[in-house]
This record gives sequence, C-alpha cells and structure tokens, in this order.
Amino acid sequence: MTRLYNQTCPIARTLDIIGDRWTMLIIRDLFMGERRFNQFLASSPGLPPKLLADRLKRLEEHGLVERVIYSQHPLRAEYRLTDRGRSLAPVIEEIVHWGLDHCFEDEPEARAAVVERIAGATLTQSFL
Amino acid sequence: MTRLYNQTCPIARTLDIIGDRWTMLIIRDLFMGERRFNQFLASSPGLPPKLLADRLKRLEEHGLVERVIYSQHPLRAEYRLTDRGRSLAPVIEEIVHWGLDHCFEDEPEARAAVVERIAGATLTQSFL
Repeated sequence: MTRLYNQTCPIARTLDIIGDRWTMLIIRDLFMGERRFNQFLASSPGLPPKLLADRLKRLEEHGLVERVIYSQHPLRAEYRLTDRGRSLAPVIEEIVHWGLDHCFEDEPEARAAVVERIAGATLTQSFL
Repeated sequence: MTRLYNQTCPIARTLDIIGDRWTMLIIRDLFMGERRFNQFLASSPGLPPKLLADRLKRLEEHGLVERVIYSQHPLRAEYRLTDRGRSLAPVIEEIVHWGLDHCFEDEPEARAAVVERIAGATLTQSFL
C-alpha cells in the first residue's frame, strides 16, 4: 500500500503521485521510449512484477500513463505517457542534470556512456 | 534501512540520495529556511523522530546538509544546506511548478496561499 503525505504543498502532492519507490524509474523508462511490461522489469533489477503492475495502474489512474492494447491474440498491452505524463519532462531533466553533475565524480567513462544513451532517446533529446 | 537502486543512471543515483520517503520534504523545509529538528517534525505530520534523525544523518553523509552547534548548554544543533544541497534548487523548483500546475486544480485558494508562502521564503524567491 502506498501511504500519502497529504499536505497542502505542491512538493508533497507531487510526491504523493510520483514519489514512491520505483515510480520515477518507470517514468524514466517511458521517457526513454520503453513501453512494455518486460522492458520496465529488465531495466530495473529488483523491481517485483506485482509492484510494477500496481505502479503502472496508479500512473494510469493519475492520468500520467495510458494503456494501449496492441494485440488481441494473445492479449498484449503497452504503456505510453499522456500529455500530463510528458509534462514531467522538466522534473526528470533537472534530476538527470543533478545526477550527471554529482553522482559520477570518479567515473567519467560511465558518465559519457550515460550522456550518449540519453542523447539517443527520442523523448529526451532536449535534455542535453 | 534504505535500499538503493544501484543503477548506472543519473536518475537512479540521485534517487538513491534524495528519493526515499520524507527526504525530499526535509530538503523542502531547509529551502524554506527551517533549520531545527522540531521544525522539520512540525511541518511533516507522521514523520517519526527517529527516521528524521536518520535522514538528516544521511543528508550530512552525502554532503547536502551541515550540522552546526549553536548552543553548548544545553547542546543544540541546527541544519543548513551546503552548496551541494542548494544545487538541488532546480529540481525542487520544477517539482513545485509541476505540483502547482497539476495538484491544485479545484483549489485556487489553497494554491494562492502556497504561492504566497513560497514567495516569502528567502531561499526560494527565484522560484516564482
């Protein structure tokens, strides 16, 4: 169960939606162009499938993500950011910048690889 | 105990530092000019004192916060953002903007009160 902060504060309210464990990484994957359940699982080792399903459902309920059926037999769905979800881009962007500036201090090669990976992603090209 | 994502990703690494429950609200309070243990407790109903102490210690270990003794008898400390901590301003700012735009849709009066409160805070004057 997700506990809420329930404060009259824009930060607390935003965190009530996107601040729980794993949610921001799922949003990151959506911005990087990933759309399928197994892709989200693969990019976040340790993320339990049941939790992923719950988090996607919550994001859909909050209007940040839409679930689209792309195959009936077998039934397959993919997930996409809505306009509301994409409006989180500046938040993600500033977190990316902060992380690149402060979390790769002794790893210039890892940092360069990340910058290259981000630069290749469709939805994040404006980040760098 | 705080579990880490341990990913080679600037977002995951940033969240390893600031992404656990309550930490971002403590950083918010520091940006709003609050410095004392009891002030942080008062502004986040439900925050257990032991957890607050642990989160402040982690922020200090990560170099985002410094602890300053301001009275020896009785021993009293206060907490301040370091330059590294203040470098989170753009992240906080974008979260504030998103929250104001998306989490107060039917509450114009509450939103106006928040904007006024933020505008009066020393460290956040550039946000609006």
